Amino acid sequence: MKRSLGVCYYPEHWDEAVWAEDARRMAEVGIAWVRIGEFAWSRLEPAPDRFDWGWLDRAIDVLGAAGLKVVLGTPTATPPAWVVEKHPDMLPVGKGGQPRRFGSRRHYDFAHRGYREECRRIVRHLAERYGKNPHVAAWQTDNEYACHDTTLSYSDAARTAFREWLAQRYQSPEAMNRAHGNVFWSMEVSDWSQVDLPNLTVTEPNPSLSLAFRRFASEMVVEFNRLQVEEIRKQSDAPILHNYMGRVTDFDHFAVGADLDAASWDSYPIGFLSDRIENDPERKARFLRQGDPDNQAFHHDLYRAVGRGRWWIMEQQPGPVNWAPWNPAPLPGMVRLWTWEAFAHGAEVVSYFRWRQAPFAQEQMHAGLLRPDSQPAPGFHEAATVAKELEGMEAIDPAPAPVALVFDYESAWAWEVQPQGRDFGFWRLAFAAYRALRRAGLSVDILPPDAEDLSPYKLVLAPGLLRLSDPFRTALASYEGIALLGPRTDTKTADLTIPVPLGPDLPGLDATVTLAESLPPGTEVPLENGGRFLHWFEHLEGAAPVALRTTDGRPAIVGDGSICYLAGWPDDATFDGIVRGLCAEVGLPTLDLPDGLRLRDTARHRFVFNYAPEPQRWSSVTIPPAGVHWEPR
Amino acid sequence: MKRSLGVCYYPEHWDEAVWAEDARRMAEVGIAWVRIGEFAWSRLEPAPDRFDWGWLDRAIDVLGAAGLKVVLGTPTATPPAWVVEKHPDMLPVGKGGQPRRFGSRRHYDFAHRGYREECRRIVRHLAERYGKNPHVAAWQTDNEYACHDTTLSYSDAARTAFREWLAQRYQSPEAMNRAHGNVFWSMEVSDWSQVDLPNLTVTEPNPSLSLAFRRFASEMVVEFNRLQVEEIRKQSDAPILHNYMGRVTDFDHFAVGADLDAASWDSYPIGFLSDRIENDPERKARFLRQGDPDNQAFHHDLYRAVGRGRWWIMEQQPGPVNWAPWNPAPLPGMVRLWTWEAFAHGAEVVSYFRWRQAPFAQEQMHAGLLRPDSQPAPGFHEAATVAKELEGMEAIDPAPAPVALVFDYESAWAWEVQPQGRDFGFWRLAFAAYRALRRAGLSVDILPPDAEDLSPYKLVLAPGLLRLSDPFRTALASYEGIALLGPRTDTKTADLTIPVPLGPDLPGLDATVTLAESLPPGTEVPLENGGRFLHWFEHLEGAAPVALRTTDGRPAIVGDGSICYLAGWPDDATFDGIVRGLCAEVGLPTLDLPDGLRLRDTARHRFVFNYAPEPQRWSSVTIPPAGVHWEPR
Amino acid sequence: MKRSLGVCYYPEHWDEAVWAEDARRMAEVGIAWVRIGEFAWSRLEPAPDRFDWGWLDRAIDVLGAAGLKVVLGTPTATPPAWVVEKHPDMLPVGKGGQPRRFGSRRHYDFAHRGYREECRRIVRHLAERYGKNPHVAAWQTDNEYACHDTTLSYSDAARTAFREWLAQRYQSPEAMNRAHGNVFWSMEVSDWSQVDLPNLTVTEPNPSLSLAFRRFASEMVVEFNRLQVEEIRKQSDAPILHNYMGRVTDFDHFAVGADLDAASWDSYPIGFLSDRIENDPERKARFLRQGDPDNQAFHHDLYRAVGRGRWWIMEQQPGPVNWAPWNPAPLPGMVRLWTWEAFAHGAEVVSYFRWRQAPFAQEQMHAGLLRPDSQPAPGFHEAATVAKELEGMEAIDPAPAPVALVFDYESAWAWEVQPQGRDFGFWRLAFAAYRALRRAGLSVDILPPDAEDLSPYKLVLAPGLLRLSDPFRTALASYEGIALLGPRTDTKTADLTIPVPLGPDLPGLDATVTLAESLPPGTEVPLENGGRFLHWFEHLEGAAPVALRTTDGRPAIVGDGSICYLAGWPDDATFDGIVRGLCAEVGLPTLDLPDGLRLRDTARHRFVFNYAPEPQRWSSVTIPPAGVHWEPR
Repeated sequence: MKRSLGVCYYPEHWDEAVWAEDARRMAEVGIAWVRIGEFAWSRLEPAPDRFDWGWLDRAIDVLGAAGLKVVLGTPTATPPAWVVEKHPDMLPVGKGGQPRRFGSRRHYDFAHRGYREECRRIVRHLAERYGKNPHVAAWQTDNEYACHDTTLSYSDAARTAFREWLAQRYQSPEAMNRAHGNVFWSMEVSDWSQVDLPNLTVTEPNPSLSLAFRRFASEMVVEFNRLQVEEIRKQSDAPILHNYMGRVTDFDHFAVGADLDAASWDSYPIGFLSDRIENDPERKARFLRQGDPDNQAFHHDLYRAVGRGRWWIMEQQPGPVNWAPWNPAPLPGMVRLWTWEAFAHGAEVVSYFRWRQAPFAQEQMHAGLLRPDSQPAPGFHEAATVAKELEGMEAIDPAPAPVALVFDYESAWAWEVQPQGRDFGFWRLAFAAYRALRRAGLSVDILPPDAEDLSPYKLVLAPGLLRLSDPFRTALASYEGIALLGPRTDTKTADLTIPVPLGPDLPGLDATVTLAESLPPGTEVPLENGGRFLHWFEHLEGAAPVALRTTDGRPAIVGDGSICYLAGWPDDATFDGIVRGLCAEVGLPTLDLPDGLRLRDTARHRFVFNYAPEPQRWSSVTIPPAGVHWEPR
Repeated sequence: MKRSLGVCYYPEHWDEAVWAEDARRMAEVGIAWVRIGEFAWSRLEPAPDRFDWGWLDRAIDVLGAAGLKVVLGTPTATPPAWVVEKHPDMLPVGKGGQPRRFGSRRHYDFAHRGYREECRRIVRHLAERYGKNPHVAAWQTDNEYACHDTTLSYSDAARTAFREWLAQRYQSPEAMNRAHGNVFWSMEVSDWSQVDLPNLTVTEPNPSLSLAFRRFASEMVVEFNRLQVEEIRKQSDAPILHNYMGRVTDFDHFAVGADLDAASWDSYPIGFLSDRIENDPERKARFLRQGDPDNQAFHHDLYRAVGRGRWWIMEQQPGPVNWAPWNPAPLPGMVRLWTWEAFAHGAEVVSYFRWRQAPFAQEQMHAGLLRPDSQPAPGFHEAATVAKELEGMEAIDPAPAPVALVFDYESAWAWEVQPQGRDFGFWRLAFAAYRALRRAGLSVDILPPDAEDLSPYKLVLAPGLLRLSDPFRTALASYEGIALLGPRTDTKTADLTIPVPLGPDLPGLDATVTLAESLPPGTEVPLENGGRFLHWFEHLEGAAPVALRTTDGRPAIVGDGSICYLAGWPDDATFDGIVRGLCAEVGLPTLDLPDGLRLRDTARHRFVFNYAPEPQRWSSVTIPPAGVHWEPR
Repeated sequence: MKRSLGVCYYPEHWDEAVWAEDARRMAEVGIAWVRIGEFAWSRLEPAPDRFDWGWLDRAIDVLGAAGLKVVLGTPTATPPAWVVEKHPDMLPVGKGGQPRRFGSRRHYDFAHRGYREECRRIVRHLAERYGKNPHVAAWQTDNEYACHDTTLSYSDAARTAFREWLAQRYQSPEAMNRAHGNVFWSMEVSDWSQVDLPNLTVTEPNPSLSLAFRRFASEMVVEFNRLQVEEIRKQSDAPILHNYMGRVTDFDHFAVGADLDAASWDSYPIGFLSDRIENDPERKARFLRQGDPDNQAFHHDLYRAVGRGRWWIMEQQPGPVNWAPWNPAPLPGMVRLWTWEAFAHGAEVVSYFRWRQAPFAQEQMHAGLLRPDSQPAPGFHEAATVAKELEGMEAIDPAPAPVALVFDYESAWAWEVQPQGRDFGFWRLAFAAYRALRRAGLSVDILPPDAEDLSPYKLVLAPGLLRLSDPFRTALASYEGIALLGPRTDTKTADLTIPVPLGPDLPGLDATVTLAESLPPGTEVPLENGGRFLHWFEHLEGAAPVALRTTDGRPAIVGDGSICYLAGWPDDATFDGIVRGLCAEVGLPTLDLPDGLRLRDTARHRFVFNYAPEPQRWSSVTIPPAGVHWEPR
């Protein structure tokens, strides 16, 4: 498949006189796609129903004339001041009850009916005007749903909608009381009006209600997105995408993705290393200018699943950003490395954010491919290099990965609601498993929780799932590889209560979690094989054979060569040993990659990436820092 | 005296069909008491004045028929939704001004008149119906006053009541202005309506007003509790208790206890270690599965004082809990150890929380004696062991302790209002003294601040008292043992101002605190004997003989063989030396117990407990981890 | 010039019977000035328009009769309860939206019209009554503007005034939209009513708006102060001062100072060490009882600039304070050292806070020269010593310093709004430069950002300036010494956007900052000379000669022997090397002072201060801890 480069561009930020030259330089450097429009509402509709399409018409013409394909964004992440004046109660409300006001972006509540209609209206106008435009080759809905913690809002609009949602789901207050165990602490309600949002309670609210609120909030995002998709589809056949973010689990991306044609995500490796990936300070310093060596790949694989195979990088970090606690520059070569790694994982397009650094407003310290004075910034040259390399490259087609990891947004909500130990989190656990697979040199597919077909994989990992979906349980029952589930997997009901009989209920595995322990930093459960569990440990009983024990004789892994259950959270070295042992059982060769060297296999190539700040040996090759190597498979 | 086991049970959580079997198994395992009802308001009164007593009648019958004695709780900690609808202004308000809403528990303001009347009403109904019930052998008022920081509320109801309280206490704004020194910063008021609650001020409010607010808030708890006691006493002769918590000083437990027949507390050794006892991380790791070795004993001795000799454990941790930052399982044997330690300190009943783990709602991850599937959890067997051991045991009668420690809630408020150093706190200081006594192998009595009779004790410690009560000062004047007072003791007036002449005013000791210093972590005042003060150091003057000096020659302890004053906060080793030196002076033998081994003497036994994770030698005996040993005295 | 001692006194706190004795003792100990009145509004005007001048008349008479000169403070920092009742919307509002209420001090919004009029009224009354009083020899406006974070308020009054201010500055919403780049994220407004305060936005507001708000807020302070000055000047010829604070940059002190006759500041060396100066814990422990060895001098030099050469210490710490996280006592001798250091830097008066420790209210644990029982506290004797030493001392006249450091409040706001790295701050950077100069034994002058005359200095440092003022740029163009600018200097426009062409625009230096990096703790940019940059590093391009490079060859310092630009934030040792190298170039001798020994040169003396806890050698002299040495120059 052909892989392309793109860039994000804001014609409304620049004098119209420079558009043509910008477009010419984009094309010259080898860029094929240009995303525009997603924050331009105040220029498209400066006052209610007063539209100004001229500038956008001309911008699309200029870009198209240069041979660029346009991704047109809907501008609904930035409602102008007049929209807020018209719907003052559309503002989201924080957990502490404070309004979140106009003056930046994302100042809207997904559940607000009035704002939804404003969005439908502006998207309809856009789609009507540009749906058949030959240069508009893709669409983007809104921008970065969930960014700035905006999925959850505690507004009056949210309260009203949540009560309606509960009424639909549970049909009667009595049924909800039963499902949530509201008899506990006399929390029973007799009317939906007695249900409040799960914030500002004296101590934690009922976890079942909190999980219901998370589901509700996720569905509001799905509905909000779907409404835009409906309007665009009426007018356009071009694919519709949304640009997701990194380490965001606040809504179900699979559910949003089901309405879209492809996924995309905004990849900021250095920003994310600084502010959202658990690493000790020494490791953060080691990868300061490269980003975490597994985080990009993890999201590539995740969004490939969300996009059902089709995905882009919509925004690729090209230099220092402005929004992380600290913002160093990438090591020379990293922009190229990140781009190639995305292609190796199947990205159709890698689009840099942004063409020219804005000299004003919130992101003025965010690098672009050009500096504010239009001179090339370091990332410009690396993008050009990739464009040249792509020209000479044979097609990069995907290969099925030998191992799979199941990822589930609902589980992330459940364990946020009820972590039981302060450092327990679904994303962190899934990423720990992913890292162990990557350190073993394996390419990985990520599966949704309702995966029906496991047959392509020799090994499936499914840690931390709230519960097994029916399709996945069915698939497990006939699975011929090894599936490693747990810890915590299938130990709760859909309402976040404890099932009786106790879970998990795994096909062919007699094992029950009778008790769970969370472990503070500095404590561990040592294992007979010299390994150890951190964070979490479960006591198991049942007839399943014990594959590994703790030093005091409790089961650590149970199961024979098919369905296995892992009773704790292994540290890195322990996870490595487990992964390698299971791979050996299924005949899958593994490597022991040095810290920073990472692989990805495609149909015809093996790609090798060096995230380390020092050169690394790969068979007979020395790969420099930020180096990319590929070889035939 | 006969010691018994109990358990907490929630018939409303379970199908009525299992009650009888539950009761049978309780009796079988050796349980004598069962506490019920304290969160059941929504089932007792589902709508205003619509009562449903039937289920509770039957539950008490079933339990009684199995030979169990019932502790009946009043359900006022969990007002149902309809109560809040009726009295929307009954919700407490946090320090930041946010309402604390329905949806968990304790969502009421102690000062709200309307809610008090609702409580009086439901308690009167309960007492009328069950006051003469032969199975109802004790009562519990409400549940865990102060839990979730609910003593202090900044609501309109609290403001109104506080103004009334001030008017009663000070009689005129002018008198309060004088008492509080409101001339400072022009804080004078001319009308009670000008007094606001001591929150949301630009910088700290007047400490005298803050202390007044703490006194007011404590009295609201006392009044709230008394109102319930009055209603129960009209109908029942059974003893009335309340279940206090660990490390809670937000209200005066002695004052609440004065209206009750016995004290009880809820002992969660592992939860408390995790979230509320100062220990360095290594020590927290060492006692991870046992709890702090002195914290349980401290509270046993404290609540024995609060109960004027009579006290229970109303809730005993039986396994992992759900509410601490991390929640590991107890070391096997610890449930037994905790139970025996409570008996050794005089508990009449040790009641486990709870019979069966709830599979729903906030505490679903909190272990019970049974698992959610009704199988025995680990604690079940340990409770059974204790029950058997109790049967064969001769009576465990109390012996007077040789040393006493004075504990004062008002002082805790005063130093929270005015710590002067960020890590100064009354509880922490008192506990430091208590630990030093325990490390020396001593059994300890805790005394209220108005203790009149010190004659049973060879040594009395009274650190950190805001001021000396008249009875205590009188007792000190004729005391024949050694009393060690300070630091900070008697250096303030009742209104938290500085007395002139300067304090302390101690009988027969010429010593004045002229200046106080607080010391950040990592700094110290070294002493001539090789010891050191941390946190706090006072400069003394006066003619009292100097018993110990700092290395730069200032007094560290003054006084001769009777009343002594300690000018700083000794570190552990220094406190050990001080305690041993004073004991030697009064002819009291001491030990030097290894970390984790602890003693308690009763009339006929010496009990030895091993909190350490490794075996410990005790004379000729080896006590395993979590082991309990007793021997004749 | 004659240097004098003073003291802060609160006659309203004490029985009138002791005033005369207090005054006698003040005079006896050698005190010449006494500041009174600044918190006494509730005593001067107990109810609206009901005045009580009698006590103040008598107090001034008694003090004057003892030979003391009075500094009379306006009481506007503590509006009484009745003022707030009259103007309930005068309360400031915190960033989170919470009101900041009556009950401590500074509970007013600088922008509130009604409160301004109340202040004008009370100041007019005071000035009319005491403007010609022969004992009133100076005035103080309000007290510690900005204290308790009160410069920024988010009240309705502030919103209204801010909109008016924006309208004045930008003339039209469209002009502001352009200046701020509001096209970004559709933040454009069409009416001033659409502009809200820059708080409670979903993510950060436009930095240009935030900087505008900082300018507005500073101007509100200037206007508030000017209004009082106007009223006083109508009635009095005595000098008017304000008492500024340490490490406060919330308003432009140069702008406030322009309306006053002299500056003064409140120096609390130990309190500031504890709560507002960056030092590692070991260094904080080392200077626990002395204060940071450079912080006092820095503020002396800063406020000498703010006062255009005339400045006082209005409040000098005399012992432990109450408000820092921890409050140890000064090392014996430090009160004397601090006093002498102030005189060496040019203070006209050093006034101790306070005469007698108040036994009540918020500051009861704050030491005075007297204890609450009127006995001398340790500081009393040190003040007496200084008074005696002053008598025998020849005049201490100022000498021009050989080096200068430019300090700019606007830059502090800009980098607070847009730090780009979490630990970047203007004050911290300027102080790092100052410390390096001090370690080299240099006396320093601090200059305002519009300094016009650099000719007295051989070396000028100007790190971190938002932009160059026109006068300063002009001065640089003809400067004959060496000026070291950067990092960050002149890289932004006045509206906090990026200029095109890129900055800096320095006379005669061809260097452009093309990219900036911020560096988290534990990371660095190593330099060829063995030094390193922390926190910040800029990529430079241009033809300027490179004086120092990073180990990977990028410019670290560029420029030849006149205007130089520093591309990063040097660590201490690196800064030392840079300062010494530049001094060598301009022929200025430097020293390498041990940690804690510090110098200050006056016209006839070199003063040497030992802040270290151990003795230090100075040529042939041994200076004890807290020792002061002076010798002829």
